[in-house]
Amino acid sequence: MAGSTFGNIFKITTWGESHGRGIGVVIDGCPAGLALCEEDIQAYLNRRKPGQSRYTTQRKESDAVEILSGIFEGKTTGTPISMVVFNQDQRSRDYGDIAEYYRPGHADYTFDAKYGFRDYRGGGRSSGRETIGRVAAGAVAAKLLDRLGISFITYTRSIGPVEISAFDPDAIDRNPLYMPDSDAAEKAQDYLEGCMKRQDSSGGIIECIIKGLPAGIGDPVFEKLDANLAKAILSIGAVKGFEIGDGFAAAHASGSANNDSFYIANTGKTAKATNHSGGVLGGISDGSSIVLRAAIKPTPSIASPQKTVNKSGENIDISIHGRHDPIIVPRAVVVVESMAALIICDALLLNMTARLDRICDFYRHV
Amino acid sequence: MAGSTFGNIFKITTWGESHGRGIGVVIDGCPAGLALCEEDIQAYLNRRKPGQSRYTTQRKESDAVEILSGIFEGKTTGTPISMVVFNQDQRSRDYGDIAEYYRPGHADYTFDAKYGFRDYRGGGRSSGRETIGRVAAGAVAAKLLDRLGISFITYTRSIGPVEISAFDPDAIDRNPLYMPDSDAAEKAQDYLEGCMKRQDSSGGIIECIIKGLPAGIGDPVFEKLDANLAKAILSIGAVKGFEIGDGFAAAHASGSANNDSFYIANTGKTAKATNHSGGVLGGISDGSSIVLRAAIKPTPSIASPQKTVNKSGENIDISIHGRHDPIIVPRAVVVVESMAALIICDALLLNMTARLDRICDFYRHV
Amino acid sequence: MAGSTFGNIFKITTWGESHGRGIGVVIDGCPAGLALCEEDIQAYLNRRKPGQSRYTTQRKESDAVEILSGIFEGKTTGTPISMVVFNQDQRSRDYGDIAEYYRPGHADYTFDAKYGFRDYRGGGRSSGRETIGRVAAGAVAAKLLDRLGISFITYTRSIGPVEISAFDPDAIDRNPLYMPDSDAAEKAQDYLEGCMKRQDSSGGIIECIIKGLPAGIGDPVFEKLDANLAKAILSIGAVKGFEIGDGFAAAHASGSANNDSFYIANTGKTAKATNHSGGVLGGISDGSSIVLRAAIKPTPSIASPQKTVNKSGENIDISIHGRHDPIIVPRAVVVVESMAALIICDALLLNMTARLDRICDFYRHV
Amino acid sequence: MAGSTFGNIFKITTWGESHGRGIGVVIDGCPAGLALCEEDIQAYLNRRKPGQSRYTTQRKESDAVEILSGIFEGKTTGTPISMVVFNQDQRSRDYGDIAEYYRPGHADYTFDAKYGFRDYRGGGRSSGRETIGRVAAGAVAAKLLDRLGISFITYTRSIGPVEISAFDPDAIDRNPLYMPDSDAAEKAQDYLEGCMKRQDSSGGIIECIIKGLPAGIGDPVFEKLDANLAKAILSIGAVKGFEIGDGFAAAHASGSANNDSFYIANTGKTAKATNHSGGVLGGISDGSSIVLRAAIKPTPSIASPQKTVNKSGENIDISIHGRHDPIIVPRAVVVVESMAALIICDALLLNMTARLDRICDFYRHV
Repeated sequence: MAGSTFGNIFKITTWGESHGRGIGVVIDGCPAGLALCEEDIQAYLNRRKPGQSRYTTQRKESDAVEILSGIFEGKTTGTPISMVVFNQDQRSRDYGDIAEYYRPGHADYTFDAKYGFRDYRGGGRSSGRETIGRVAAGAVAAKLLDRLGISFITYTRSIGPVEISAFDPDAIDRNPLYMPDSDAAEKAQDYLEGCMKRQDSSGGIIECIIKGLPAGIGDPVFEKLDANLAKAILSIGAVKGFEIGDGFAAAHASGSANNDSFYIANTGKTAKATNHSGGVLGGISDGSSIVLRAAIKPTPSIASPQKTVNKSGENIDISIHGRHDPIIVPRAVVVVESMAALIICDALLLNMTARLDRICDFYRHV
Repeated sequence: MAGSTFGNIFKITTWGESHGRGIGVVIDGCPAGLALCEEDIQAYLNRRKPGQSRYTTQRKESDAVEILSGIFEGKTTGTPISMVVFNQDQRSRDYGDIAEYYRPGHADYTFDAKYGFRDYRGGGRSSGRETIGRVAAGAVAAKLLDRLGISFITYTRSIGPVEISAFDPDAIDRNPLYMPDSDAAEKAQDYLEGCMKRQDSSGGIIECIIKGLPAGIGDPVFEKLDANLAKAILSIGAVKGFEIGDGFAAAHASGSANNDSFYIANTGKTAKATNHSGGVLGGISDGSSIVLRAAIKPTPSIASPQKTVNKSGENIDISIHGRHDPIIVPRAVVVVESMAALIICDALLLNMTARLDRICDFYRHV
Repeated sequence: MAGSTFGNIFKITTWGESHGRGIGVVIDGCPAGLALCEEDIQAYLNRRKPGQSRYTTQRKESDAVEILSGIFEGKTTGTPISMVVFNQDQRSRDYGDIAEYYRPGHADYTFDAKYGFRDYRGGGRSSGRETIGRVAAGAVAAKLLDRLGISFITYTRSIGPVEISAFDPDAIDRNPLYMPDSDAAEKAQDYLEGCMKRQDSSGGIIECIIKGLPAGIGDPVFEKLDANLAKAILSIGAVKGFEIGDGFAAAHASGSANNDSFYIANTGKTAKATNHSGGVLGGISDGSSIVLRAAIKPTPSIASPQKTVNKSGENIDISIHGRHDPIIVPRAVVVVESMAALIICDALLLNMTARLDRICDFYRHV
Repeated sequence: MAGSTFGNIFKITTWGESHGRGIGVVIDGCPAGLALCEEDIQAYLNRRKPGQSRYTTQRKESDAVEILSGIFEGKTTGTPISMVVFNQDQRSRDYGDIAEYYRPGHADYTFDAKYGFRDYRGGGRSSGRETIGRVAAGAVAAKLLDRLGISFITYTRSIGPVEISAFDPDAIDRNPLYMPDSDAAEKAQDYLEGCMKRQDSSGGIIECIIKGLPAGIGDPVFEKLDANLAKAILSIGAVKGFEIGDGFAAAHASGSANNDSFYIANTGKTAKATNHSGGVLGGISDGSSIVLRAAIKPTPSIASPQKTVNKSGENIDISIHGRHDPIIVPRAVVVVESMAALIICDALLLNMTARLDRICDFYRHV
């Protein structure tokens, strides 16, 4: 409902603006007994920290997280975990211009239309810094999922026109774009240099693979696992499209090519010969890896001249200067992973209540 | 949470199985005073009724809706509206085979994995008939939105490899595929004939345009309007992808091309020169038309032979016979529209609480 | 939110009006595998059926329940359970008077104030018949809880000034007032005869004891088990007060008298020497029986003359005739039990997610 | 669901432990445009601050609130308002004993039963300090309600056996017990002196009157206004009972005495001659003042010897020393008011969506 709360059982609420006191998140509903410390969170946050390459904003932020509640003797207590990153690099500057006009591709106009006014400093609540809360919470969800044998591989699939043509997981962390194909990463960097010269920006596609999820997770009808993943991913600013499995390509395929045959694996378990479904059938996990993709639009803040309007109702020409990423895709990789982790975690917790025999077993042993 | 409930203020709960007593929906939270009768609902349901063309299942169902509560003297009372379509064509047949094996591309295996067993008759709860409840509720939402000047155009954008290359809204209802391009519709029908001969099936893409929505609707962060639309659309069985505005194409574009310039229209209002955003900026409507697309996978029920497993853990060969659609895209058009209407309706109601000055005005006049 | 939906994991939505087509409920989130048939529901519904004694309305309703979905081969499937009781005794009569004025103690005026108009036939949605949906759902929750060793004893504690002074569980079903004290039941019947002669009505107090609930169920802070029980009980029409354990008497006691000492029982388990707390400490069950009470106001429909206003804004005198209960307490006993069962069921399901070690165990064995 | 989140549209999430870094709250869904500063919040917090009289704990806490987000240029922006009170007086002490045994009347045992362990320092999350977040949020809700003409009078109705017999609103703030009867306040102070000498504690009853609420607010069936108030009040630690209007006394009354007659007031509006209903009929406000009461149990921390058990499963004798309130009633007054304000605020926002004509009006003027 209220926009900044997310999840059902593992529920998070984020707060904070780009140039306010800080950015934070409260997790309500994290199970008790998970070993957790600030370093666990920081490792995730560092993946989205600014200033790490020439393709990301040069704003200086250590983005150091502090845990304010919910941990005792190194473990989660089951009560709310409050985390905060205080803002440091809030340059005092004249925001007057930004306050008066609406930047194309940004939420300036829509915030004014909805609320009557807005915190225009650095984009306020619609800034990319809002994702700090998501990533801090995602780190907790991912650590919990790790205990259940579930892991994530998330990476950049394409930058502008440059798509990966190889898949080497080890390559992902070796280039600033998080691409699993070093050659593609070099080409993409060349492409981005061109964008920057033209004072322009680029978009791209992020792919996330979730391994180890057992079959049977998710719900039919409205709470399908892929439906919840779609919402989670589209809730990230700048995402314009979502695919599960073959996605839009499935719309062009025939049923005989798109169906995944089942077979009995050597382990005796039911398995699928292919994974066109992306690990979900009827909204419920089918035991294969979950495969999803997010389409990210180009950064709307560009230095080249643009036409827009001001609050006085005049047509004006602007060019936006300042510290902006020519591409946000690399920094969004961990955000996509975090949102996916939150959904999977919530679905696993809810799924415990699906079958009476297992409920009876559970309480027999309590 | 529980899978069959959807929405926050305008909330619906659907129930029913393909071969059970019927399919129904309860709307809780519909405002009082909307003129509503069964014909309003029936008009929507008829758009998804089986047996209307040779491309849809020949199952005979009148799908006649009955309103059981919530209407008095021809108007909604503000209390729950219960609607039901009783099943008629439940052929008594031997379901034994289907009970024992898992159809590729269907939810048979995942339902068993989740619940331990399933109602296998006609797909049970995962049948396409489940969407009757969505469409009945969507008809109510759409009628309410019509009172606020909001309308929908929804159609088939592509069938397999055949995409529209013209856009004539009047053509949509003149072909059984609901395509706004009569030539494309003919080619698509040829393509489908081929699919049927090969005992195969096809997918396609549905597009929905929402007109008349004012700027300022939707919420930032997790409850973005496009995020909720994405969830709504992905919750429809067989949908594998979602796009808003330029969608995946935006990932390949540059910022200068993707940004929509604002200008002051002749009316004095702020408008956009283009609509790459698809009518949403930062999760909030920007006053342009909302444009979204859904990728629908090919019908998984095909008559050609397939490999799968049975519940005894054996690899087997099957071929599925019976009354199945070679393509579900045309019947899914109204389902996409219904889900979109539910989201828009809910967002408009919630938005009334966004600004204190408007709240004060509201209660001053009450 | 929307008024007719209740619960989180075990979620119900009720619908229907006193003189409409029927009354129903949809349960979404009932675990799969619970043996369930219409007789299970009917047994509960019969406890609230009208016409069973001279103290209840003589309206003739068989209140026969039909299950429309969610059951397959005699067991719940995990998908929504839709149940309906069709109305039979809808006498065609002139409702004109009731439509025009506001009955004191009823919701006529407040429904008009909220919705602008109302279904005035028999009270519409605010009729006591609305509780049919609650009781049908409560029967399912109670059957599930029975599998977990949890049981209920619910009874009338007082009628007007007549309170029980003995407690014989076997007596409860032997008198039409469901009192566990036969002597008190006789006195109460005498008292009611007097009320009826005076064309007046009476209230009373219902007590519910929940046995077998393990310690540790419920949540701290806002989702305290007793807070949710309070909401559930107050949501029943005519309830004006709620107590857990010693309730208001605790406000007059000293801490030394009110605290319950813990001790180690013969079984080796932690137990309490007394139960002033009513089985809840800090919002979480403490292993003792849950003890709660509901205060029910006298039936507002009385035949003696009353002053009120009509919709034309005139002061008028009325007297209400028709089929009304001089007391609703006996019929409300099963409603209180049903609401309590829904809360306990929901809390037990949610509690499965409280501890990481148990979650890991759960998924290790899946 | 998750225990520390409350409300639907005006939604709050609290966090923090008695001896952790601090206590905080995030409000998500507060309308934009409300003038708000830290002083507004502090005024409320000061009403529950410790150390203000000899009847409250002598723990030294300034309880100074900081607003971390959601305010821009002195007004709420519509995005989350994060507020924190950092803990100051966290004496470093040996908590060893408390960690090992279960204090009677406290949540020590139930937290261990639920979560497997607990933050035992000062009661951790179950401490009375948890209410800081509620009061900070309640201050915001109350300020918003003030704009709509809705106000609160909340006070102590009784302390142990001493009940008020006069009602002078001006007296409330003139005695440390917040009683509207100075004579009763003196007697109550004498009574508390006796309790303290006996190393014992006392409970009491708090009453809250809500003025200015228009008729028509609240929902029928499960979301009755009084049901939500009951949950809100019972969610406060130590509350054991709730009444609306005549409450339990209604159970002993006759219908003719309990019904409130309607009449046309001089203003031309519908009014009630009496207010036995406490301002709610059928779950919806009737235009009279809302009147509710909360029964508070005696402080469980008493210095006199008690019997209990330790985690090793042994019966032991304890006496609790430290800084404890002999009565928490006076400090709970503002907590009751805060919880009531949250419910009323949420109900008013939701109510804007009840009628189509008003929705159409609203959007016509937007």
